[in-house]
Order: sequence, then C-alpha cells, then structure tokens
Amino acid sequence: MRILGLDPSLSSTGWGIIDSENNRLRYVADGFIKTDTKLEIPARLAEIQKSLQQIIELYKPDEAAIEQVFLNSNPVSTIKLGMARGVVIAAPAMYNIPVTEYEPNKVKKAVVGVGKAEKDQVETMVKILLPGCKPKNNDSSDALAIAICHNSYHGCHSIKGFK
Amino acid sequence: MRILGLDPSLSSTGWGIIDSENNRLRYVADGFIKTDTKLEIPARLAEIQKSLQQIIELYKPDEAAIEQVFLNSNPVSTIKLGMARGVVIAAPAMYNIPVTEYEPNKVKKAVVGVGKAEKDQVETMVKILLPGCKPKNNDSSDALAIAICHNSYHGCHSIKGFK
Repeated sequence: MRILGLDPSLSSTGWGIIDSENNRLRYVADGFIKTDTKLEIPARLAEIQKSLQQIIELYKPDEAAIEQVFLNSNPVSTIKLGMARGVVIAAPAMYNIPVTEYEPNKVKKAVVGVGKAEKDQVETMVKILLPGCKPKNNDSSDALAIAICHNSYHGCHSIKGFK
Repeated sequence: MRILGLDPSLSSTGWGIIDSENNRLRYVADGFIKTDTKLEIPARLAEIQKSLQQIIELYKPDEAAIEQVFLNSNPVSTIKLGMARGVVIAAPAMYNIPVTEYEPNKVKKAVVGVGKAEKDQVETMVKILLPGCKPKNNDSSDALAIAICHNSYHGCHSIKGFK
C-alpha cells in the first residue's frame, strides 16, 4: 500500500509518500509546496491544487492521511488554514483516494511512542523508521510522520475520518 | 463579459452566471451544489470541486466573484466554511479566471441600494435586474447578487481581491 501524508498550510504544504508492505515501511518521496506570498489567495490555492494533482498522478498513492486541524483562536488565521486544508483534502478525494484524519498526539504517539513529542524527535524517528530518508524540511517531515501514523492505525482501528 | 458569482458552503454552494455588455445584464444560469451530509468531508469537497469544474467548462466565465467570509465565533464552523471556500475559490483560479472578493454590505448595496438589505429584498432585486430569472433557491440568488455586484464595481473601483 502506498500512503500519501499531507500537512496543509497556505504558505507551505508538506507532503510525503511511503510504501508499506507487511508493515515494513519504505520511503518513496517527500517535499513541500511553497506558495508565493505576493500572489493573491486564489492563485496560491490553485498552485497547491495543481502541485498536488501532479504528485498524485506521478506517485499514485492508494490512501491519504492528514493531521486534524489545530483550531486557532484567530478566525482570520482559521479561515486561511481552512481554505488550504479544503484544497489539500479535495485533491486526493478527486481521485477517489480515501483520506483519513488523525489527531496530532496520535501522529506523535505512532512515530515517537509518546503523544507529547517535540518536532525534532518526530524528525529523528521519521529518519530511523524510513532508512535513507532525509526530509526536505519540517513540513515534509511532518507529512511523512502522518503517513507513518496512517500505516500504524490502518486496519487495526476503525477511525472515522472526519467529524 | 461573463461573470460567475459564488456563495460557498459545505452543504450547499450557490452559483450564478450573468453576461454583462455595456453594463446591460443578462441572466445565463444559476444553481446550487448540494452535498450529501452522510458522506465524509473529503467526498463532499470533491463533489463541490467536480461540479464547479463542470459549470466552468460549460459556461466559460471570464471572471468570478465571491462574498467575503462571515467570520463565525465557532472555530469548527469557521474551518468547515474555510474548507468549502478554499475549494470554491481554487476552482476558477485553476482555469486562470480572476476571483474578486466583496464585503456582504457591498453586495447588498450594489443590488438593493442599501448595505443593510434583507435576503428577500436581494432576491426581489435580482429578479428585477435579471429579467426572466427565477433563482433556484436562496444560495443561487445570493450568487447572482454577487455576480451583479462584481459588474457594478468592475472597472469603476480598484478592489484588491483578497486580504
């Protein structure tokens, strides 16, 4: 099974792809979609969507996973994150690829073993769990962690994807 | 110029298309994209995106307009609205169709003449301004109002589309 992990944001959306066979993991690819802050929001959202379409068509993942949203107290930030998130979730769904959502502490627990791990610990474990992988940046490392988390839970738990 | 007005929401996204020639308006089409609440959010977002792509490919609008978001104090509602909004904004942007955003009171002022008009007044004026038009529902009527608003401001004011 090929898993696409996604860490959405308007400025830089991380993505990471792993293969899982009999619970053995293999790193496939990772990266981030950085949008030009000088562009208006519609163009930035279209950029995210186009890039994700290319990634999905190139790597053909079977399933996708995304971290549950961090709800910000600032409604303007929340709506911006929501917009990026909508586009990122719709991209695999357009190809009928199922998308599952995980709470941040579930992702950390699946990768590091504890729910309150630091970002550096997550990256260190991503490198250990995916030999040969050097994540491009924090966003793509987080996306790979989400893909690893999906592999841990997939088939073991029945997770309702979205509330 | 052909204008696509959009009123996004996860449950029912209104759309309306008008033609404008020398400031004379002509109704072209309107409708709403209702998503099945039993489906998970990714499938509902993909449904909105697919339907909008079909509408855009069929009617080939030159420009698109959307109402500025109503910021809800409930972050869960805000993120859901944001997700639908992201997909709705990205759809025309993917076809390089410019998308402009208008404050709700600007839309009402352009259609009714005052910024604090009721929904019914907006619908009545939409019917008067677009002879022969019977909006399918409130969402598509709002979308047509947004398209009319875009026509009023287009070329007269320099509006920065998105904050």
